[in-house]
Amino acid sequence: MIKALKFYQKRNHSQLNVWLQNYISHKHQTLTDAMNYGLMGGKCIRPILVYITGKVLNCSLEQLDTPASAIECIHAYSLIHDDLPSMDNDKLRRGQPTCHIRFNEAMAILTGDALHTLAFTILSEGKLSKKAESNRITMIQILARASGAYGMCMGQFLDLEAAEQMLSLKELENIHRNKTGALIKCAIQLGALSAGDKGISIMPQLNKYADAIGLAFQIQDDILDITSNTEILGKPQGSDQERKKSTYPALLGLNGAINKSKTLLNEAIQALQTIPYNTKPLEEFAKYLVKRKN
Amino acid sequence: MIKALKFYQKRNHSQLNVWLQNYISHKHQTLTDAMNYGLMGGKCIRPILVYITGKVLNCSLEQLDTPASAIECIHAYSLIHDDLPSMDNDKLRRGQPTCHIRFNEAMAILTGDALHTLAFTILSEGKLSKKAESNRITMIQILARASGAYGMCMGQFLDLEAAEQMLSLKELENIHRNKTGALIKCAIQLGALSAGDKGISIMPQLNKYADAIGLAFQIQDDILDITSNTEILGKPQGSDQERKKSTYPALLGLNGAINKSKTLLNEAIQALQTIPYNTKPLEEFAKYLVKRKN
Repeated sequence: MIKALKFYQKRNHSQLNVWLQNYISHKHQTLTDAMNYGLMGGKCIRPILVYITGKVLNCSLEQLDTPASAIECIHAYSLIHDDLPSMDNDKLRRGQPTCHIRFNEAMAILTGDALHTLAFTILSEGKLSKKAESNRITMIQILARASGAYGMCMGQFLDLEAAEQMLSLKELENIHRNKTGALIKCAIQLGALSAGDKGISIMPQLNKYADAIGLAFQIQDDILDITSNTEILGKPQGSDQERKKSTYPALLGLNGAINKSKTLLNEAIQALQTIPYNTKPLEEFAKYLVKRKN
Repeated sequence: MIKALKFYQKRNHSQLNVWLQNYISHKHQTLTDAMNYGLMGGKCIRPILVYITGKVLNCSLEQLDTPASAIECIHAYSLIHDDLPSMDNDKLRRGQPTCHIRFNEAMAILTGDALHTLAFTILSEGKLSKKAESNRITMIQILARASGAYGMCMGQFLDLEAAEQMLSLKELENIHRNKTGALIKCAIQLGALSAGDKGISIMPQLNKYADAIGLAFQIQDDILDITSNTEILGKPQGSDQERKKSTYPALLGLNGAINKSKTLLNEAIQALQTIPYNTKPLEEFAKYLVKRKN
């Protein structure tokens, strides 16, 4: 699995580089550099999910590059804005200074904005296969819904409001379903839509899988904040506790959180059972997500 | 003209309110309030240009609401982010405290982000006439190009870099063609695309008109920063001079700037001559733009 992940990461980075080089760099090199800085070095969970889902449905990589690139731009912009001093005030990300530390705050805001728009340029202009072309508008709709005030942005808002409050499990789940879950689900939907009708026909099962792994991913993040270290994480370990954030381990205990994560992994695998294609890669990726060390 | 402008402003505000109420408010009231705060009270130059251009081509208002609403979301988000402390650090906008003063900085960043995405939700989901439907993807493409690293964001970047530097006229023009001109041009293009092939056939003339009024609009902004007062402007008068910003009056003198603006107005009116429809409203709007007092 790790080898496949590295392959997809590399593919995603090179695709994004093509967009940055061909479409922007002749206009403004510093802006391109800052956008590149914000895009590189991530785990590429979302584009990988686009690729894996699409591959399960027999799409070629070329047919998946466009949605994979678009969704990573949304994720990258959200991290840059999240890290800002008035938001999470993080200085380290992916083992490097955060964008506002490396450049400055104004540039970080603008770089995030530029990446945010680039996602929609890519998804509206990028190559799609013939069978996916009729789903292009739907893809744009779901990317906008997942990332805006119906999804990710709203999750961020709820997260801000919840600062230093002890939440109920239900409230915490609502934050994460929006803050991270919505975009992870969107990645899987984009992969499915790239395959045309074939993808649409298995959307209910994929949505169940997505809901389960989206939450499991966040729980693992919370667990790693306690059990890992800054060097492996590439961001400060223990920052949730320091900020008195509500987390799954804080509400369920460390073992409770680990068990919840296992239950969700089973749910995810269960959801794949009735899909009439070889879903092994999705199953393996779910396992990777809950067992990853950073 | 002023009566027509007020009518279009009201129409735009009520349309945006429908989007906020129907699509967001049940999810998060504070976020909706902040988005509403950022959207209301503006001059609505861009949506008005969508409406006027579309009306010249015989579109109904209903056929123009979607692109008009989308482009105002982009403009509103850009103002919220522009006003932030690390950017222009403005405390007054449209006679009211700026978004980060009224709410807080983190909320202002997120509210801008949410409005940014909402533009693409509106343009990908909102109603369009049958003849405009086949242009929907093109509309999304040009909105993204005009607002991102190819247009507005890049203009902001150049503007940041130019802080406290004396620019050449060419450099200043390049900033404004991107920072404000790109979105103004986009508004006119969106209006034209709403009319289907009819609009596409007069795009070259409309683009010339757009280039001229986009720059004239900015020159008038620079002039008003010197000749108006804070109460009328709704934002601090004299702030360009205070920031030692390069402006047209600074480079050309006040009379030189006024003359440049007149030349551009003539260019704009000239560009309309070969359009085989009644372009009077576009002509009147161009005159309003260079004669406005706030």
